[in-house]
Amino acid sequence: MRIENLLSEGIKATPPSFVRGILKAASDPDVISFAGGLPNPISFPQEKLLESMERIVRSYGSAVFQYSITAGLPELRQYIAKRYNRIFGLSLTMDNIIITTGSQQALDLIGKVLLNKGDGLIVEKPTYLAAIQAFSMQQPVFYPVELTEEGMNAEKLAEALQNPVKFIYAIPDFQNPTGLTYSAGNRERIYEILKGRDVILIEDDPYGELRFEGERLPYIGAGKLPGSILLGTFSKTVTPGMRTGFIISENKELLKYISIAKEASDLHTNIFSQYLLWDYLENNDLDGHIAEIKALYKKQAHAMMDAMERYFPPAVKYTRPHGGMFLWVTLPEGISAMSLFPKALEKKVAFVPGDPFYIGVKNVNTMRLNFTNADCETIEEGIRRLGELLHSLERR
Amino acid sequence: MRIENLLSEGIKATPPSFVRGILKAASDPDVISFAGGLPNPISFPQEKLLESMERIVRSYGSAVFQYSITAGLPELRQYIAKRYNRIFGLSLTMDNIIITTGSQQALDLIGKVLLNKGDGLIVEKPTYLAAIQAFSMQQPVFYPVELTEEGMNAEKLAEALQNPVKFIYAIPDFQNPTGLTYSAGNRERIYEILKGRDVILIEDDPYGELRFEGERLPYIGAGKLPGSILLGTFSKTVTPGMRTGFIISENKELLKYISIAKEASDLHTNIFSQYLLWDYLENNDLDGHIAEIKALYKKQAHAMMDAMERYFPPAVKYTRPHGGMFLWVTLPEGISAMSLFPKALEKKVAFVPGDPFYIGVKNVNTMRLNFTNADCETIEEGIRRLGELLHSLERR
Repeated sequence: MRIENLLSEGIKATPPSFVRGILKAASDPDVISFAGGLPNPISFPQEKLLESMERIVRSYGSAVFQYSITAGLPELRQYIAKRYNRIFGLSLTMDNIIITTGSQQALDLIGKVLLNKGDGLIVEKPTYLAAIQAFSMQQPVFYPVELTEEGMNAEKLAEALQNPVKFIYAIPDFQNPTGLTYSAGNRERIYEILKGRDVILIEDDPYGELRFEGERLPYIGAGKLPGSILLGTFSKTVTPGMRTGFIISENKELLKYISIAKEASDLHTNIFSQYLLWDYLENNDLDGHIAEIKALYKKQAHAMMDAMERYFPPAVKYTRPHGGMFLWVTLPEGISAMSLFPKALEKKVAFVPGDPFYIGVKNVNTMRLNFTNADCETIEEGIRRLGELLHSLERR
Repeated sequence: MRIENLLSEGIKATPPSFVRGILKAASDPDVISFAGGLPNPISFPQEKLLESMERIVRSYGSAVFQYSITAGLPELRQYIAKRYNRIFGLSLTMDNIIITTGSQQALDLIGKVLLNKGDGLIVEKPTYLAAIQAFSMQQPVFYPVELTEEGMNAEKLAEALQNPVKFIYAIPDFQNPTGLTYSAGNRERIYEILKGRDVILIEDDPYGELRFEGERLPYIGAGKLPGSILLGTFSKTVTPGMRTGFIISENKELLKYISIAKEASDLHTNIFSQYLLWDYLENNDLDGHIAEIKALYKKQAHAMMDAMERYFPPAVKYTRPHGGMFLWVTLPEGISAMSLFPKALEKKVAFVPGDPFYIGVKNVNTMRLNFTNADCETIEEGIRRLGELLHSLERR
């Protein structure tokens, strides 16, 4: 049987994940990996979660093991609504929220609900590789808009909007892959451009809670643009293994269709995990827990930047993120980070070359480094090895 | 903002689930619901699962809370391979298995990987409503083939295969919605028809373990048809709330693409649940547990059939399933089960009218009844109420 003859155009248009493809190489214990996007496992509140498990089984019995509703556990949705209302002055109720199987599923559902083959969407250049994957399944046309130190280039955004576009996908806080954050002024400009237009703004915010420098900035769309969607997750603040994210929107018509897409995709998200997270959140101090994570990641980010200062050739540039999990390295013009990758693996250090974060661009001179999943000594040693490699290139 | 203008053709082609739509009405505690497909909650091994939770957190620590690989926990996939090899004489390894977020996700992934808009697929008539949903997202052409007491009509199947068809979706054991099981002879005939053809057979088997009468029959495709796919789940044997199903195929090329689609859909299935199920399965007697479930469901199925014998007019026919969770009622010609539904709700009893199990057919005289989620007394009372309603129709 020739499987190729049976494949859909959608799956053929979907690139396999570079990160998932190198998981095996990167998980060699001798390799220092800056490639993944893993939270530091010491940040998982294991004991507290175990306490919650016992409590929810005792309190809710079979309900935590049974089929459940598609939108998600009402108590958890209420908790999320209250938290976002408190922090961002929104007016959400649980009906504005759908729990998703990780925020990756949110991207899949949005693609399903909004995109026909050939439809346009705007993404940052570069953008999150698994968002490119999820949307590619629908074979849309991507219009990438340059990301600057201030955020998405507003002028270029206005230009891109002259194309027929269904939505804009943006990660305004500690962007993946660059670690950049949109400035307050840039957010305002983008809002002014989008106001009144029939285009949906998707603000993906997995890292916003992890700001270790400066003050949190308001969302661009949430609470202001009527068709906007906000994505959140517990993956970076509590546990990613439980695959629990959420979609927030004030547009209930849109949520109705997202809910139908979710029924068809997995009926509902793991209800045990939803009870577990809700019980954990109700019985523990989430803000206190997040403060500890931020202190940890701040130290690790600085360990990486300090080591780069010390070990990288001056021609190599990098972003200085105020939060999140990644920073972005720009090599001198003409050096392909992808061709560097196997050489780095020989030196037992891994990163993600920039290529998979772009649409149809190859051999770029950028790479993503994760600073959350190794201790400071390991980070220094990894950056030292990478620096050695970069210096050896310069000498040739 | 007018959301309708932004919707994809795929989501507009996807019917919302009737079952999920009436969940609210059906969950009124005064209503006796035969509508859902819920396992009896007394069958969940809560205490044993709680023991396993503690054990996996103590033994594997942060690994049960961290991101994980797309194909699923190797130990769980090995367990599944061994079990299927033992029961069905297959030669599976863990590389033949991908863990999915419930078997609903398997349907979604199969649709993504195989279907372009307008592609053909064959389904049973009637078939599982959420499979219709999942595949509809890709806007295919459905070719429904009549289901008889023997299984899918082999002659009609051969006819339907004259159309260009990517795959056949079948539920050979205790089919949803009818409760019917394909006979050994029918399986053999279908195998002969499919042998050597470039068409994929998908055998969805969520209920096969729940046979409470007779002997288990061999699969049609698994181990014999090179492109065939077998779907399984722990939802009916351990817990559905954990959303853990699996795809089995000997075609690794096909699995490679399914895995890419899964990456893009939710990265991986909840890893805590996978550890939990694996630990539970290793430390408990699954066959013994399933024997208890079967004894329970046999009693409940017979309670329903006995009550139908007593309370239903003789003109009303019903299947007599040998396992699974459902039976299928056929009303006298011309009576729409859908129009009966609101009258039944007035009498505080719910079922699923046949309509959503068909493609483009309305007001059929069939309905699905679930017998696993109520005790025998409740089942009798529900059937009594339904019988009252059916008799009142006859008198008019």
